[in-house]
Amino acid sequence: MTEPVLKDTERLDDLECRGYRIIQDPSGFCFGMDAVLLSAFVRCGPDAKCLDLGTGNGVIPLLMCGKDKGSSFCGLEILEDYADRARRSVRLNGLEDRIRISTGDLKEAEKYYPPASFDVVTCNPPYMLADHGIISENHDKMAARHELFCTLEDVVRAASGMLAPKGQFFMVHRPFRLTDILTLMRRYALEPKELQMVQPFADKEPNLVLVRGARGGRPGMKVRETLTVYESPGNYTREVLRMYGKE
Amino acid sequence: MTEPVLKDTERLDDLECRGYRIIQDPSGFCFGMDAVLLSAFVRCGPDAKCLDLGTGNGVIPLLMCGKDKGSSFCGLEILEDYADRARRSVRLNGLEDRIRISTGDLKEAEKYYPPASFDVVTCNPPYMLADHGIISENHDKMAARHELFCTLEDVVRAASGMLAPKGQFFMVHRPFRLTDILTLMRRYALEPKELQMVQPFADKEPNLVLVRGARGGRPGMKVRETLTVYESPGNYTREVLRMYGKE
Repeated sequence: MTEPVLKDTERLDDLECRGYRIIQDPSGFCFGMDAVLLSAFVRCGPDAKCLDLGTGNGVIPLLMCGKDKGSSFCGLEILEDYADRARRSVRLNGLEDRIRISTGDLKEAEKYYPPASFDVVTCNPPYMLADHGIISENHDKMAARHELFCTLEDVVRAASGMLAPKGQFFMVHRPFRLTDILTLMRRYALEPKELQMVQPFADKEPNLVLVRGARGGRPGMKVRETLTVYESPGNYTREVLRMYGKE
Repeated sequence: MTEPVLKDTERLDDLECRGYRIIQDPSGFCFGMDAVLLSAFVRCGPDAKCLDLGTGNGVIPLLMCGKDKGSSFCGLEILEDYADRARRSVRLNGLEDRIRISTGDLKEAEKYYPPASFDVVTCNPPYMLADHGIISENHDKMAARHELFCTLEDVVRAASGMLAPKGQFFMVHRPFRLTDILTLMRRYALEPKELQMVQPFADKEPNLVLVRGARGGRPGMKVRETLTVYESPGNYTREVLRMYGKE
């Protein structure tokens, strides 16, 4: 395995999962706890065929590989430099036979993959509306955080189109969009089946929500116990340490 | 104040709120923690004009009176013996000038009240679908728990019709209906604005959800920190003790 050359501004980060590493550019968008939570939330068999929409630097497929969730992974990313870093990370970890990264727009997912061909679709989409917040960051950080290239509806529509019957959709998002999330999922036949709120501390409001929908599923939601991230400032709870494989 | 005569099977319960008491029939449906949580969740000014849909024994108006939430209360109840008990409880507590109980069907609320005439509508509706679970209980207990006389959609439609512009709807329900709740509220212009999950213990799944919607509100949800009811078996958390005025 030859070490892929890092570009000037890039660094190599430890994924704390089976020794896997990931190439990131600290001047751009780097993965956060959201990706770790989403990959831990996903439940799927070892044979599942998975698609990650807006895969960025490819962290979700890499983590799912590391956790033995799913067999083959496609990652679709609109920004070529992120897709390129993702491809180099895949090679770096020797996972070329399991993860394939494509550069492309999730709004045109059917150009890249046959419809209804995946068992699992994951997405860690931009959370903020295009017109929300101060837009002072660099362009690709903004694209990861704001709905510049795709809306929540685009994500849900694409996931619905790509999933086989009974296929499972897993997404992490912000609680302030909860009504949008659930109404859109139902509208596009990804019936919401499971939900988990994530709070930074036991007495603080949730700042993330994890949701699972089933393609063509029947109504009926299971809400899991709320996940608390920190026991005290700087110290993860047991549940989160377990995700990082440290308990 | 003359003590209203209790009927044979009835008993007088302490509401643990300003000395108020409530007449209940233990062979029928008696109020539970849901009603206490809902009345604590409601936020409204002391001048608010309030309507409780499916008021049962009148516990919600009584508790809201006791907490100085709202000025005048209407309670609508389809079962005459419950409405009768509610009226006697209102008299027992000397609240005839603030609480008025009507016997009637919430599906025809506009027969009893002018449309768009309330600042606040509350509801602790039946949670279960009509065809769910073992239907072995007596008829009125069943009506309180199963959607026999009204569906969730009937409740949301009635609340929407009764609320003035910007009026607030507060409801307690079960998490398994969350998608139904949020999609129906949005459909009937009661935009979901606030939500709180309620877990029996810190590591147990939520079994109740509290939700607030605003008549004609804009999208955007605030999810509150999850409320845990018990610290340990039999011992309430500080948050719940505070609701009962014991901390």
